[in-house]
Amino acid sequence: MSVTYPLGFRARGVQAGLRTKPAPDLALIVNDGPRDTVAGVFTTNRVSAAPVQWSRQVVSDHKARAVIANAAVANACTGIDGLTDSQCEAEHVATLVGCQTDEVVVASTGVIGVRLDMPSILVGATTAHTSLDRGDAVDESAARAIMTTDTVPKSATVERNGTRFGGIAKGAGMLAPQLATMLVFLTTDAVVDPEEFQDALAQACDVTFSRVDSDACMSTNDTVVAMSSGASGVSLTGDALVSTLTDLCATLARQLVADAEGSHHDVKVTVHGATSTEAAVAVAREVTRSNLVKTAIAGNDPNWGRILAAVGCVPEDVAPYDPDAVDVSVNGIQVCRSGGIGDDRDLVDMNPREVHIDIDLHAGDAEAAMWTNDLTHEYVEENSAYTS
Amino acid sequence: MSVTYPLGFRARGVQAGLRTKPAPDLALIVNDGPRDTVAGVFTTNRVSAAPVQWSRQVVSDHKARAVIANAAVANACTGIDGLTDSQCEAEHVATLVGCQTDEVVVASTGVIGVRLDMPSILVGATTAHTSLDRGDAVDESAARAIMTTDTVPKSATVERNGTRFGGIAKGAGMLAPQLATMLVFLTTDAVVDPEEFQDALAQACDVTFSRVDSDACMSTNDTVVAMSSGASGVSLTGDALVSTLTDLCATLARQLVADAEGSHHDVKVTVHGATSTEAAVAVAREVTRSNLVKTAIAGNDPNWGRILAAVGCVPEDVAPYDPDAVDVSVNGIQVCRSGGIGDDRDLVDMNPREVHIDIDLHAGDAEAAMWTNDLTHEYVEENSAYTS
Repeated sequence: MSVTYPLGFRARGVQAGLRTKPAPDLALIVNDGPRDTVAGVFTTNRVSAAPVQWSRQVVSDHKARAVIANAAVANACTGIDGLTDSQCEAEHVATLVGCQTDEVVVASTGVIGVRLDMPSILVGATTAHTSLDRGDAVDESAARAIMTTDTVPKSATVERNGTRFGGIAKGAGMLAPQLATMLVFLTTDAVVDPEEFQDALAQACDVTFSRVDSDACMSTNDTVVAMSSGASGVSLTGDALVSTLTDLCATLARQLVADAEGSHHDVKVTVHGATSTEAAVAVAREVTRSNLVKTAIAGNDPNWGRILAAVGCVPEDVAPYDPDAVDVSVNGIQVCRSGGIGDDRDLVDMNPREVHIDIDLHAGDAEAAMWTNDLTHEYVEENSAYTS
Repeated sequence: MSVTYPLGFRARGVQAGLRTKPAPDLALIVNDGPRDTVAGVFTTNRVSAAPVQWSRQVVSDHKARAVIANAAVANACTGIDGLTDSQCEAEHVATLVGCQTDEVVVASTGVIGVRLDMPSILVGATTAHTSLDRGDAVDESAARAIMTTDTVPKSATVERNGTRFGGIAKGAGMLAPQLATMLVFLTTDAVVDPEEFQDALAQACDVTFSRVDSDACMSTNDTVVAMSSGASGVSLTGDALVSTLTDLCATLARQLVADAEGSHHDVKVTVHGATSTEAAVAVAREVTRSNLVKTAIAGNDPNWGRILAAVGCVPEDVAPYDPDAVDVSVNGIQVCRSGGIGDDRDLVDMNPREVHIDIDLHAGDAEAAMWTNDLTHEYVEENSAYTS
């Protein structure tokens, strides 16, 4: 289960006919309460899609009763008409659910610059509403309905102190800084304070989805929305709330990395010995963004020279360190010692899907990790053949 | 001709045996004077190779009599031993040429983290010195000796007011911001003021090599060195000097783009209507760095949504503009109008090798252009199979 694992939620994914092939493409998740708390984190791309503009407003007063999300078309760069489309979706779902229009979150993913097929969406929403349910089957249908180039649906659940959390996610490319390019819908039956819920979600995203950088491309449609029904009657606050949301987001983020477009390796870049977390993240991000590092890993080459070249691109005021002090290990073999030649690179076993790059700056005590993927023929194939 | 087109220069590329296959791999360029003015621009990567560290010092007092450059090994991340190697090369060439050690520029390109084969280099330098000459043959041998993954040698000449300029360049990957990853050696017989020569070279690089971004990866070895013999007896100053060096660098930069690893398209991204040149460059750079834009072009897809998504990633304080005002044309067809759907993308002819992306921010009067390439299977192949 996923989004209906917590009490107070029903869901359904249906085939509205938005895709060229027959498959679920529209998901509806409804919060039956008793509470209707919502939190959201959205793309920081200045070119944000109509559903993002709409849903930002919905989330701003911390109340939502439903999420409607479609694949195939992103409804981005569609101007005022696109915003009207998102609003129409919300109105229709509000009528079905029996709530206010501004209590309906709308999300879209798919091709940019194309209008939504509104008749199909509205009919599909009605069908989904008619068949809302709880359990494995509807959860999977919802997770499948938001997939684009994803090869598998992504879901997670967590329990904490008698409360339940669930979530689904999609995203396989355009996974980028600030926020991985994706849609994520989380649910919980914990009783939460609305503003604390928003802060906790932002904190959780900051160390999970924002630490995934698949191809350095930030999307116009990134959306993470969390709804709380409060149906467990149990309150969750403070660190317990943050850490539970973080666990849930981390599980989903790891699934996004594992399914990144055309990847053969999941790469964890950990920077140790930085002067601050920000410095560690900056160095890790530069390495995860390097096409030369990513192609080397695709070729099973523990090429520490390219890693060091990427590290060297971070400005000194962002991350102070001495280039001649830097150590680099790949899968546990210290191939670079003090900025120079270390152990024999042939000792590195590059066969596992997971590749660990550990960089020690020897400049302080802070550390941070980011995830990326290798850059493969299949990535080029998917992104040169697939229009988004 | 190229580096020996100006009076006062001799050159030669030889096969020192540094490569796995038989081909020229060591180039020597000697300035016979009467003047020995030099200017240089180097990588801003904090991890800079030993030859860069050495040559920065050489250039700092504006005097040099020779350049020795090798391919195959970059002598980067080789610590104090690597620096000693570069100094030994300089000493040996100084003895051959009859100048001071600190009048010899040293450059290397190739694999990072490997020591130079010094016996081969020193013997090769002696051979090159013995056969120094002027003319097409030696110029081509020098241009070939510095090639790595380049498929063709790159050279250019310019004449201005009775003075001559020539140059050779290498670089086919790691072409990156600040300075394309490359070695460039320029010569002139113009009489120039040393400090003005340095300023003029920096200005020329800023609008040519620094406007090329092949794969967003900045090298440890970037080097642009210009030597003046003054043998024409004609002085060149001010704008004439800057514009001549700019013409020369622009010609070489264009050749670098045309030979970028595995590319099928050369892409010129021009940003119009920006509030400043810096803003225009920032937007152009974000587009040229987008793997999703670059893979779309590899697929002959004028995907303006991905272009707009990249434009939207530039922070507002860097480039103020209204996302709903942005126009995008690809090869002359305005596929995006006012941030939304424009003319039919099927009208765009993506067959030419050169692809022009024109972005109008409608925010001011400044504009700037940057060059990049598409991201192809062949790029991945070269960079996953080739160790650098």
